[in-house]
Amino acid sequence: MPDPQPIWQVMTGYQHSAAFKTAIELELFTKIAEGNKTVVDIAKACGASEKGIRVLADVFTVHGFLSKHGGEYALSEMTAAFLNKNSATYLGSAVDFIMAEGQTRGYDDLTNAVRNGGSQIKGEASMDPDSPMWVTFARAMMPMMYPAAMGIANSLTYDKDQKLKVLDIAAGHGLFGITIAQAYPNAEIYAVDWANVLTVAAENANRMGVGDRHHLIPGSAFDVEFGDDYDLVLVTNFLHHFDAETCTGFMQKVCKAIKPGGKAITLEFIPNDDRVSPPGEALFALVMLAATPGGDAYTFAELKKMCEDAGFGENVHVPMPPMPQHMVVSTKLS
Amino acid sequence: MPDPQPIWQVMTGYQHSAAFKTAIELELFTKIAEGNKTVVDIAKACGASEKGIRVLADVFTVHGFLSKHGGEYALSEMTAAFLNKNSATYLGSAVDFIMAEGQTRGYDDLTNAVRNGGSQIKGEASMDPDSPMWVTFARAMMPMMYPAAMGIANSLTYDKDQKLKVLDIAAGHGLFGITIAQAYPNAEIYAVDWANVLTVAAENANRMGVGDRHHLIPGSAFDVEFGDDYDLVLVTNFLHHFDAETCTGFMQKVCKAIKPGGKAITLEFIPNDDRVSPPGEALFALVMLAATPGGDAYTFAELKKMCEDAGFGENVHVPMPPMPQHMVVSTKLS
Repeated sequence: MPDPQPIWQVMTGYQHSAAFKTAIELELFTKIAEGNKTVVDIAKACGASEKGIRVLADVFTVHGFLSKHGGEYALSEMTAAFLNKNSATYLGSAVDFIMAEGQTRGYDDLTNAVRNGGSQIKGEASMDPDSPMWVTFARAMMPMMYPAAMGIANSLTYDKDQKLKVLDIAAGHGLFGITIAQAYPNAEIYAVDWANVLTVAAENANRMGVGDRHHLIPGSAFDVEFGDDYDLVLVTNFLHHFDAETCTGFMQKVCKAIKPGGKAITLEFIPNDDRVSPPGEALFALVMLAATPGGDAYTFAELKKMCEDAGFGENVHVPMPPMPQHMVVSTKLS
Repeated sequence: MPDPQPIWQVMTGYQHSAAFKTAIELELFTKIAEGNKTVVDIAKACGASEKGIRVLADVFTVHGFLSKHGGEYALSEMTAAFLNKNSATYLGSAVDFIMAEGQTRGYDDLTNAVRNGGSQIKGEASMDPDSPMWVTFARAMMPMMYPAAMGIANSLTYDKDQKLKVLDIAAGHGLFGITIAQAYPNAEIYAVDWANVLTVAAENANRMGVGDRHHLIPGSAFDVEFGDDYDLVLVTNFLHHFDAETCTGFMQKVCKAIKPGGKAITLEFIPNDDRVSPPGEALFALVMLAATPGGDAYTFAELKKMCEDAGFGENVHVPMPPMPQHMVVSTKLS
């Protein structure tokens, strides 16, 4: 008989998501990083029971997030880098978005989403105006987006002092535009998002020293006036929320705002044509099925067609391994 | 930098548990087993959208439950054995218990359980009298328990025609006792469980042809009179719900009901002394932390002490690989 363990692992995955959320809430990994090694010491530092901490720490030892020798726990290299609150690359805040009710409720209704071809969740959902979900996203997910933002900024080949007009669509935390403003001192960033979300982007722009070159365009990206003559438009983690026709129409609006020779950089989870590889990219289709009426993880062929139909003359696929997010760099030729 | 993918996988585990539940509800794997190979055909057979089925089937291709070639999906050997509703070894019904609200709500309150050293959930919870949770368990989990029940029955070395008096504690689906009744035609089984649960055990005993030798003792296993002079007492998946002191007291009651030379067989998830291996056994401690006030996955040393303190003279640890459940065979020497 084959081994049914993989079935058990998928079925009980929710238990380990919950354990992770609890570990972040109680700062389990941070307290171990601070030198607490035994169940007794960690429990005291976390303000929790010894029994509970023993079970939780053992679970994350099984997962390889911790090691355990002679009753003392230690962080793995990965855990030290990403799950210690005092690490510059701490990612634990992502649970505030990934495991918020705004996200999880889509999975409670997943059978209906599969029946209907998309989520029918309404009210403070991803597609609703001024949804507080995107404020949570902007605050919780910024650390997770930092590598992609750096990747985009580093991929640009403008002259250091060049004047640049950059449109940052669905700016969220603002990091994609801010990173470019930091790299190019004469870049002016125009950030589009819901007004409530833009308060987060503006905060970050000020904190990161580029507030005077960071301008806000509040409202729906489909409705607001972008202005024109942009050198660069960033369309990051946006298209996957919409069906292909909507994406094509939107990219037409983007193309019109760009000056000849200017570019759009689209950031997306782009699976291969088989749609089942690489894993991270392929699995993202589920996230969109659960969260949106018509969104998807689009292949490069699909994104290329949208961009061509929208008026872009050249579209180049740029993976950014090991990240599951890829760039499509589209040029408005004439 | 280390790869943060394992963090992402744990954090998003709940999404894949939900996808599994949906796949079982829509009979995705069964419909593929019935010859539907393309998204169009599977969607029609499942009564679902093509988009939804494509995403769902791709997710389970990434997990290795399916393969996908030229747009046609096929079941893996594991999936064919365990997730096709028409397979004799179908395990899909387990989601009815593992992902029922009675189980999942413990994880919604997990941070408090870690703080307090156990779950404080009340009302139709695992510890409550006549909890409907155990009726669901009895119906949903029987297929998953079949290998362990066969393992126990096959481990017995009684003469075929021997008269046997067997007590089946927390009988649930009744399978552990029923399997022994099938193997030993002169065995009389006394099944203890809540009255509502015993209706399921009785149904199964009748269906499996041993109803006339299957007797019911309804009520709490802590309170009811077991009777005495038992050859064998089955304590399957029971002790892990309680703290060690309660287990010891309970095993005392069990020992009294056994005749000299008789045995108790305890079935448990038994981790090694390090409590972090093997994975399946070790992770079960989390399930008990989320579901019970004082339960645990006990090591053999702990179980042995309970049984010795309760009066058993010999206690032998019998793993049953590849299952995560192990036997402890305890003998009442005098």
